[in-house]
Amino acid sequence: MSQRVFNFSPGPATLPEPVLREAGRALLDWQGQGAGVAEVSHRGAAFMAMAAAVEARLRRLLAIPEDYAVLFMQGGATLQQALVPLNLAAAGARADYLITGHWGQVALQQAAPYVDAHVVASAAPDFCAVPPASGWQLSAKAAYLHVTANETIHGVELNQRIQAPCPLVADFSSSIASRPIEVADYGLIYAGAQKNLGPAGITVVIVRRALLAREGQRRAPILDYRAHLARESMLNTPPTLNWYLLGLYLEWLESEGGVAAFATRHAQRSARLYAALDGSGGFYRNRVEKSVRSRINVPFFLPDAALEARFLAEAEQRGLVGLKGHKAVGGIRASLYNALPDTAVETLIDFMQEFCRHHG
Amino acid sequence: MSQRVFNFSPGPATLPEPVLREAGRALLDWQGQGAGVAEVSHRGAAFMAMAAAVEARLRRLLAIPEDYAVLFMQGGATLQQALVPLNLAAAGARADYLITGHWGQVALQQAAPYVDAHVVASAAPDFCAVPPASGWQLSAKAAYLHVTANETIHGVELNQRIQAPCPLVADFSSSIASRPIEVADYGLIYAGAQKNLGPAGITVVIVRRALLAREGQRRAPILDYRAHLARESMLNTPPTLNWYLLGLYLEWLESEGGVAAFATRHAQRSARLYAALDGSGGFYRNRVEKSVRSRINVPFFLPDAALEARFLAEAEQRGLVGLKGHKAVGGIRASLYNALPDTAVETLIDFMQEFCRHHG
Repeated sequence: MSQRVFNFSPGPATLPEPVLREAGRALLDWQGQGAGVAEVSHRGAAFMAMAAAVEARLRRLLAIPEDYAVLFMQGGATLQQALVPLNLAAAGARADYLITGHWGQVALQQAAPYVDAHVVASAAPDFCAVPPASGWQLSAKAAYLHVTANETIHGVELNQRIQAPCPLVADFSSSIASRPIEVADYGLIYAGAQKNLGPAGITVVIVRRALLAREGQRRAPILDYRAHLARESMLNTPPTLNWYLLGLYLEWLESEGGVAAFATRHAQRSARLYAALDGSGGFYRNRVEKSVRSRINVPFFLPDAALEARFLAEAEQRGLVGLKGHKAVGGIRASLYNALPDTAVETLIDFMQEFCRHHG
Repeated sequence: MSQRVFNFSPGPATLPEPVLREAGRALLDWQGQGAGVAEVSHRGAAFMAMAAAVEARLRRLLAIPEDYAVLFMQGGATLQQALVPLNLAAAGARADYLITGHWGQVALQQAAPYVDAHVVASAAPDFCAVPPASGWQLSAKAAYLHVTANETIHGVELNQRIQAPCPLVADFSSSIASRPIEVADYGLIYAGAQKNLGPAGITVVIVRRALLAREGQRRAPILDYRAHLARESMLNTPPTLNWYLLGLYLEWLESEGGVAAFATRHAQRSARLYAALDGSGGFYRNRVEKSVRSRINVPFFLPDAALEARFLAEAEQRGLVGLKGHKAVGGIRASLYNALPDTAVETLIDFMQEFCRHHG
């Protein structure tokens, strides 16, 4: 087997090695059943017990209050961006959107067929800052206010506690479980697992139960949160292998000290990386306003595209992969998700300093 | 490791052992990249090449004509049951449904919010036969006719070639790739992978490209087939691990002789199992009309519930698992998917005969 590289991939992202080793064994034989974890019935006792344990562990890790339901769904964050208006707003009702990057724009686009989507503020086209809350044009009566907790592509993270006159809905795909949050501040939180929680193919939804009393819009049961909740996220066959991997990932998060420990880790290593960028005499540039720089996704640029290409190629030779920036912005991007070891960030910083000495 | 059992589970279902072994290795290191298959970017060269190879292999295996698009999606067959009316019918338009079992009823229920869903014929409540085509009340102008190729719970399989005045849409979740079909007979075919093609969490959609010109209904891009097709089934992050496993499964199907070989295998082993049922002097009873008995899912009953419980317990001791019937019908059900070895069926028949001798 090749040595494992340092994988800065933006998602699907690196997974903890112990999780992968255990999953490899469980593919052939899970819990001594003589069948693998992807081969057993989701309604069997073993899988049902595992699913309940995963929910309990997620509730513990994120301190999810009892009056919130937890759903495990397919379709990624993007499907949630359609389900939120379908479930929480009447057809054509006003819904507010704060746009701090690419994914906020996607959320808006997915909601547009269903609601009167109103942009309260936007940092387009540069997305280097979060518009000050004092200037947000909040609607008098919105079904909800949608925000993106962390913008994976633009590297902008919301740091403020938001006071909204309506339920707050947040896409936490790239920063869930990276620091403690007050779940009660939100009406609904959703997160694709493939960055900070597990593999692609499963999405976590945390929703205040009272919000599910809303009528929402005409929709099939498969698009209805209530139907999923009534069947314990097994309205139809769930992505069992993905659910299992998410469970192992949560176990690993807990064994590493839980969300508080990761908050410290993320704060320290992102600070070291930004310090390296800012201390490069302008060779490396991150354009985001310091107060909202993402602890998780760090995009940066070199003086020109040729140097960026060389940077990526040499980084790869050092076992530092997945660093290419998103095509929407170009440049370099380091995604520092939970499962990325601290040594990966140290190795990257060392390499960056060396590269700067040679080419700066 | 425990010895692998014979797993008759209705889905998620048994997977080929070589597939599981290879996947176990690929979890830690895929193609010598130093990162596992679930950890690499779906837009990276390696994964894109794999995805293209999976589609090409599926097209070869199922003889899918060029004027059909193939999509790989999340959400299971149930999500397709909402997407079909949303994409292929105008709001409130007439759509026809043939109901031959539980899953046809579910399809109808998912479509009801979107179309004037008309039941052309139903075998409810017993679902032991397919209503003769001569009696189907087909609509003069329906957007499509929906059928369930194989009813997993009731064990009823459509064997006839259907002549419909509108595009035929078929749920093939439990019988895809179990015998050659004429794809051109269908407007759209969908199948959750977790029975005959791979793990849960990925769904195959095969659709005549011309049908995608239909306007359909107001919907988010994530619910629009055209948006998925335009982005090569990577409109958002796809379930990469599931896609990879599906690919390995297809490779295995091909190495075992392809769909024609499985057709022979299914015909022979289901015939042997039905012969054992019918030759038991009434001890084992399958209620389905012989001409439409499923080659894939074989439900049957013993004289009473106590004997059924004992049957299941003793079967499990022999390493024959997953045989409990669906709660909607009770009894026993043997699901004979592609990856189930022939020896599993032989072992089951031997056990059934022995059990009958002791308790008949």
